Amino acid sequence: MARDFRELLQGRWKRGNFLCVGLDSELERIPKSALNGSVHESILTFNKAIIDATHDLVCAFKPNSAFYEAYGDAGLRALKDTVEYIHSVAPDVAVILDAKRADIGNTNDGYVRAVFDTLQMDAVTVHPYLGAEALEPFLARREKGIIILCKTSNPGAGEFQDLQINDSSGLGASEPLYRVVAKHVASQWNKNGNCGLVVGATYPNDLKEVRAIVGDMPILIPGIGAQGGDLEATVRAGRDGRGKGMIINVSRAVLFASGEQDFASAARKEAEALNDAILNSL
Amino acid sequence: MARDFRELLQGRWKRGNFLCVGLDSELERIPKSALNGSVHESILTFNKAIIDATHDLVCAFKPNSAFYEAYGDAGLRALKDTVEYIHSVAPDVAVILDAKRADIGNTNDGYVRAVFDTLQMDAVTVHPYLGAEALEPFLARREKGIIILCKTSNPGAGEFQDLQINDSSGLGASEPLYRVVAKHVASQWNKNGNCGLVVGATYPNDLKEVRAIVGDMPILIPGIGAQGGDLEATVRAGRDGRGKGMIINVSRAVLFASGEQDFASAARKEAEALNDAILNSL
Repeated sequence: MARDFRELLQGRWKRGNFLCVGLDSELERIPKSALNGSVHESILTFNKAIIDATHDLVCAFKPNSAFYEAYGDAGLRALKDTVEYIHSVAPDVAVILDAKRADIGNTNDGYVRAVFDTLQMDAVTVHPYLGAEALEPFLARREKGIIILCKTSNPGAGEFQDLQINDSSGLGASEPLYRVVAKHVASQWNKNGNCGLVVGATYPNDLKEVRAIVGDMPILIPGIGAQGGDLEATVRAGRDGRGKGMIINVSRAVLFASGEQDFASAARKEAEALNDAILNSL
Repeated sequence: MARDFRELLQGRWKRGNFLCVGLDSELERIPKSALNGSVHESILTFNKAIIDATHDLVCAFKPNSAFYEAYGDAGLRALKDTVEYIHSVAPDVAVILDAKRADIGNTNDGYVRAVFDTLQMDAVTVHPYLGAEALEPFLARREKGIIILCKTSNPGAGEFQDLQINDSSGLGASEPLYRVVAKHVASQWNKNGNCGLVVGATYPNDLKEVRAIVGDMPILIPGIGAQGGDLEATVRAGRDGRGKGMIINVSRAVLFASGEQDFASAARKEAEALNDAILNSL
């Protein structure tokens, strides 16, 4: 059966898995015990150990393309082999490429092919700035997840995302750009039911507002762990009406829980603690 | 001497070269006579022929990453080898990677390394949505060009880019988001003098407004040719006070000027015609 991003998420959410482990595997931070000759082998060895240790606890893995592109060919082969490994050992876990892509129409065909066909990802993150018309090649892939940046987790996210947009009603009301993005995605972009949004755990009030706008749409929530987002506040703000809908990403706090030989068991311990904390906050 | 994006542009602009050839080398459209066994060799053979035929007429070449990523490893090796070839035969021509990247701070380090160190690009295009704080790893590279999407050339660009933003003056005035982006870039992002903007030739009035905001900042202008932008209107709207500042991109109309064996001479003929038309409009 063909893989379907929404179905994969639903299956895992039913089991109580809302955690997403971000595979941001910087070579410089990989413990010595995983270093294995080449760049390709080192990253892959590290990723396999993390995947083995955590895949029964997560709804998704999310490699960020930047960390692989940084190492050229070798990095990209490690990325491709990592996805294949996840599909083989945990076929019911979604793989999201955090690539933050977006170009104009015919050019996106290239990205769509790279992300979904060459790399076999289940979902991808994209920028909203060019509008739905430009992103049509992504949005047309019904079985994939198209996860649009809405309110990002970084300290300076508000520079444009919080700008007040005039309401077209003429009543002089206004609302921030990230809310307008959420409304457009929910009401116009999601015809194939394959959209999601990114909202940072570092802005729980904004997360709550976005959840109210988008119903049960999946929200990918980065910013827990190294970035300082509060887990309990995040779950309270991010859950949908049935206590689901969340993909809560943690990268460094899990990957680099230990810099020693026990890095995989330390990663599992951290993932278990996060999982418990999520379930206790629901 | 180290390469400097602004200096490369200035040198070419002095010679009257404002054209940028977009190396969007889709394998499916490459003439049979350039097909050469492998994907890597075919793309590279085609690109070399186009570069040989046009490099004395241009201020920059602009490969779009999507068309290379679509072919996985082989495509990325073709991209890397293409940049090396340009540096060797036309060392005074800038190479812009149209990658439309942008992630949060530490993640951008990976993209910066991939684009500037691994691929040896002189400039890159980026999305503004995450703000200057996130893009600092790009902006810190003084000798490179950081070209921010402002008003893109696609028909649906206005969905968010034309949204009216409330003026903070409290006087009830408002202006479109793309103008706010241009103002932020000109007044806050450009501390190292290394910023540029993307404004589509398909919106000449908006191009004129942005030029008035940003002074002599380089503006990368796609949308001529296949997308239907008018060249004369573009030059009138896009030139700075000294008749410079423009990087006018044409991709398909040059690359695929002929689908036959004469594709390189046809590309040169088209590039010459565009060059003449630009100079006649100045």
